[in-house]
Amino acid sequence: MDIILWRIDNDDSVLASWFRLKYPHVAIGALASSAPILQFDDITPWSSFNDVVSQDFKSESLNCFSVIKAVWDVLDERGSNETGLLELSKNFRTCKTVHSVSRLGLWLRAAFTTTAMVDYPTPANFMMNLPAYPVKEMCKIIDTFPPGADVIDKAFAAASLYYNYTGDQKCFEVEGGDDPHALHGWGWQACTEMFMPMTVSNESMFPPSSFMPEKRSEGCFMFYGVRPRMHWITTQYGGHKIDKVLKRFGSNIIFSNGMRDPWSGGGVLKKISSSIIALVTEKGAHHLDLRSATKDDPDWVVEQRRQEVEIIHGWIDQYNKDIARM
Amino acid sequence: MDIILWRIDNDDSVLASWFRLKYPHVAIGALASSAPILQFDDITPWSSFNDVVSQDFKSESLNCFSVIKAVWDVLDERGSNETGLLELSKNFRTCKTVHSVSRLGLWLRAAFTTTAMVDYPTPANFMMNLPAYPVKEMCKIIDTFPPGADVIDKAFAAASLYYNYTGDQKCFEVEGGDDPHALHGWGWQACTEMFMPMTVSNESMFPPSSFMPEKRSEGCFMFYGVRPRMHWITTQYGGHKIDKVLKRFGSNIIFSNGMRDPWSGGGVLKKISSSIIALVTEKGAHHLDLRSATKDDPDWVVEQRRQEVEIIHGWIDQYNKDIARM
Repeated sequence: MDIILWRIDNDDSVLASWFRLKYPHVAIGALASSAPILQFDDITPWSSFNDVVSQDFKSESLNCFSVIKAVWDVLDERGSNETGLLELSKNFRTCKTVHSVSRLGLWLRAAFTTTAMVDYPTPANFMMNLPAYPVKEMCKIIDTFPPGADVIDKAFAAASLYYNYTGDQKCFEVEGGDDPHALHGWGWQACTEMFMPMTVSNESMFPPSSFMPEKRSEGCFMFYGVRPRMHWITTQYGGHKIDKVLKRFGSNIIFSNGMRDPWSGGGVLKKISSSIIALVTEKGAHHLDLRSATKDDPDWVVEQRRQEVEIIHGWIDQYNKDIARM
Repeated sequence: MDIILWRIDNDDSVLASWFRLKYPHVAIGALASSAPILQFDDITPWSSFNDVVSQDFKSESLNCFSVIKAVWDVLDERGSNETGLLELSKNFRTCKTVHSVSRLGLWLRAAFTTTAMVDYPTPANFMMNLPAYPVKEMCKIIDTFPPGADVIDKAFAAASLYYNYTGDQKCFEVEGGDDPHALHGWGWQACTEMFMPMTVSNESMFPPSSFMPEKRSEGCFMFYGVRPRMHWITTQYGGHKIDKVLKRFGSNIIFSNGMRDPWSGGGVLKKISSSIIALVTEKGAHHLDLRSATKDDPDWVVEQRRQEVEIIHGWIDQYNKDIARM
């Protein structure tokens, strides 16, 4: 009962590669698309995720990047009192008046971050309904405002592309509310084994922040009652010098990454051996290759998927040959 | 902190190979001497262990093999009543009168089985003090008796080579007593993860027996309060078609086996890839290669050790080259 694993979620892509490494007798290969297996300990620069998000926006428009970079201070300033919060609640069309300006910041950040992840070349509905090239579309919205317009209005209008592309949202649940993307599952992972250090650098479009493992651990304990196992993954699966180790170990793994995907910073971007291969697309986003084909797919996506299918066929052929020879 | 593992115990040799497979970033290689990694599920014929023991004795003398094969029925017959047990206790010079003839049988079997394992070409004291080629010496003892001598006396004299080569034992603790070889550790292993199916075939020199997993499981529960995980190892580490899997996976493992070692039946005896290698010696016994060198070592042992050292040096050189290139 040999199987090939591939899955569409972020952590599942990571698991696909690890499963192949730990159970080579069960899975004959893995397509690990957008799998940040190096986003642990000190292997990858901690700022890489937010750096890529910022670069995605900057690549569309320097003005767009600057507007987003400017919004956080304005938001904090206006949200420092009750009157300001009431005003901001109107600006953001929140369903209920917000009690904390930090929730508005998180709401905005989630829009920009997720849109960078799903910056697909065709319309898609992976997290939300979005048009093709949604980062470009967000920046168009920002750039279309007259120069003197309020930075809060610009940021809100851009975020609305993410939260309300179909236009059917009357108001937004900014505080609490449900979890439409089941990110609590990811939160649990990030609080147990998938403990990924992340920071925001001064060059990013988000407010700079450093990595405070103790603070994160406290948060995990408060929210889930667990403490992260900070170094478990690199102990269990390696990571430091993993290219050197895997060169003489393991086989049949495709690591695919799109360089516009913020997770690509923690991905394997170089060929490791003849059968542990990296497929990198400059314009690709988060597991674009795993999405259903559409008639509007650019040639480079079509070609990437063709290569993947060809490689996987090769694994299966080899497997059948080995079986026949026994 | 990369390490190379090699250890002198049976289960540790198995663990060395598994550790290399699961933690290639921690151990750069493994010398798995006499590691029966295929002695699980239905991979290896279940009778192989006792078949090799029997073959070891048969190869020295057909009479020796036949005497040992004949002793079990005689033992059971005479031990079927109190008078017989008292008489047998005298024959076997037991410290206390035995209450169960089965204990005498186990005592004899342990001597023959273990002597087959440690049938080294030089005097050694791995389990007990023994001369060079102890199986040959046991058979000499049996063959030296006059034809009409009692089969029990012959078997006891042969077993005494194992239990009393130095001649300082006044009597033998056949029932209960301590565990000089710490085999309780092995018993625990065999009752939890290292669940190896074993039988005795009609062609062997021991009383035939089949494999009854339920009975063994009951025994484990009575003795240790645990139940075996019968298929855990093949799930965790593979085994079925492991040669096919490891051919394209893993590296830097030496599987060494001596064909006189009863464990060799469950060992990897063929080269799997350019760096997963089998070293087989026809006359070798249980991890002979890992024992200290002596001036009397035959050439083939010296050569085997030389090859192993050369291969391990190759791993270390390659590792250092990889490090230097980074």
